[in-house]
Amino acid sequence: MNAAASHLTGVLSPVLTPFDANGAPCSDRFIRLCRSLLDQSVGLAIFGTNSEANSLSVKEKRALLDALLDAGLPAARMMPGTGACALPDAIELTRHAVVSGCAGVLMLPPFYYKGVSDEGVFRAFARVIDTVADERLRIYLYHIPPVAQVGFSAALIERLLDAFPQTIAGVKDSSGDWSNTAMMLERFQPRGFDVFAGSETFLLRTLQAGGAGCITATGNVNAREIARLAREWRTADAALQQRRLDAIRSIFQQFPIIPAMKAAIAWQSGDEAWASVRPPLVELDASQRAKLQTELEAAGFELTGAAGLARPGETAVAS
Amino acid sequence: MNAAASHLTGVLSPVLTPFDANGAPCSDRFIRLCRSLLDQSVGLAIFGTNSEANSLSVKEKRALLDALLDAGLPAARMMPGTGACALPDAIELTRHAVVSGCAGVLMLPPFYYKGVSDEGVFRAFARVIDTVADERLRIYLYHIPPVAQVGFSAALIERLLDAFPQTIAGVKDSSGDWSNTAMMLERFQPRGFDVFAGSETFLLRTLQAGGAGCITATGNVNAREIARLAREWRTADAALQQRRLDAIRSIFQQFPIIPAMKAAIAWQSGDEAWASVRPPLVELDASQRAKLQTELEAAGFELTGAAGLARPGETAVAS
Repeated sequence: MNAAASHLTGVLSPVLTPFDANGAPCSDRFIRLCRSLLDQSVGLAIFGTNSEANSLSVKEKRALLDALLDAGLPAARMMPGTGACALPDAIELTRHAVVSGCAGVLMLPPFYYKGVSDEGVFRAFARVIDTVADERLRIYLYHIPPVAQVGFSAALIERLLDAFPQTIAGVKDSSGDWSNTAMMLERFQPRGFDVFAGSETFLLRTLQAGGAGCITATGNVNAREIARLAREWRTADAALQQRRLDAIRSIFQQFPIIPAMKAAIAWQSGDEAWASVRPPLVELDASQRAKLQTELEAAGFELTGAAGLARPGETAVAS
Repeated sequence: MNAAASHLTGVLSPVLTPFDANGAPCSDRFIRLCRSLLDQSVGLAIFGTNSEANSLSVKEKRALLDALLDAGLPAARMMPGTGACALPDAIELTRHAVVSGCAGVLMLPPFYYKGVSDEGVFRAFARVIDTVADERLRIYLYHIPPVAQVGFSAALIERLLDAFPQTIAGVKDSSGDWSNTAMMLERFQPRGFDVFAGSETFLLRTLQAGGAGCITATGNVNAREIARLAREWRTADAALQQRRLDAIRSIFQQFPIIPAMKAAIAWQSGDEAWASVRPPLVELDASQRAKLQTELEAAGFELTGAAGLARPGETAVAS
């Protein structure tokens, strides 16, 4: 059985959000990228950090999710990000995801105030859970202190799990700190709390330790190979595969990674619109793009499914 | 002439947002606090950090502003916070404020991504200004790196002023770093860019250096005395007044300041609903409240206009 294709385990990607010439999210390109990722056994953690999700309004996110569902993409493979600074926004997005049949949601804590207490973050999650009041709700905690600054202590995870054992389903650990992921794997994975590494850098180690997989930015551009390791991690080839993944990722990580991934898609698909980002992000400049391309070519990088991402109208795409 | 009563100079306060028993913003209490502050010559920087503004949805903020205007409060004394992580939200709130006649808006930069470039923040502001496209728009930059993490460098302020001289009107400097405020006063105030200190701690020094005033949390609870210093700062009594303001503020600053100010209003008005905060904030516990009250009583603190903030129905309030 291929776990990655049947459930929220294995590899998911915070899907990049394409913008049109007016800076509005482009649902056609978004649908095609999501379909391409699913074809490569990568699940859809839409509306993550790498999706520029916090640069989108609630209305824009609702419309993009609706567009995916209208295009026939399976909600069972989706884990939209629904956390927000304002509880009414988090509640609205979470309810919309659950009612739409999404398998889970990936929730940031409220992230404007810094130095908030575990009690305050607990209350925020309790408020969302109690207000949405839907037994289908599965929440994955989004722990990304380098960006959100506010994160989840072990004590807070324990308290949430004790209070809402059917709802608190797992975590994406984007701390970048393996010792923290290892702690979560040891302490919470045995309770059925699925630990996802925050990048493929820790994929092999996470799977070896009994974890669920990874939710990773570079799943957008290196989907096939990352998903392959998630399938073949018990084989003798796994360590070599991990090193190859690390090599590709390290190329992207030399640049601001969101613009770099978008530039790579623009390059490989021939659709320049993919290079656009929304402020406060800035697209790569020409010299950065040249360096990125040169290094990716030297590494033998190829974007699987690039043809399906070509400019609308230039390639037949069913949607 | 009393500058504080006629224009966006002097003292403004990020007005605390009251919540009802269901956790919804309470417009009646909000109107009464705003009216009380205006009566004490304190302008309305509604929807600031101390207003829990980022814990409110766009819809809630629009409704609260509309409620103030429907109650007859003057838009000319209002500087609502309209910054947001998502540009569509910032644009909607800014347009609503301008169309409503607000004298200015106080704008946070997009604050989710950390380490963003000046270029990215510039583009965010340019996008708001170009999209709102209203010559009445006056933007005050909200520089609060301890919370937002993303701030405004001198080079960025200069670039914004050069590009939008009619629109970029000033700054609230909540860096907590006097040398930064002094730099802004020296470099930008002469261009008609109004520098507001981020608290009354720097009020006297800011006014002595030609600045516009302060926008301060404790304006919610010590309005009359702070506004008095803004009027009397050239008198021999000013240094003593400043020390008295500092003494009161230092009492509040021993606690998380938003719950502490709300607790003080609940205590002085007798309306316990004032103590409520929205997650991720947490109200003061009983021992904190006791300590706060004891110290405020010892300092001779008294909330001016407390009677007008009593429980709805218990005191006649025109609205």
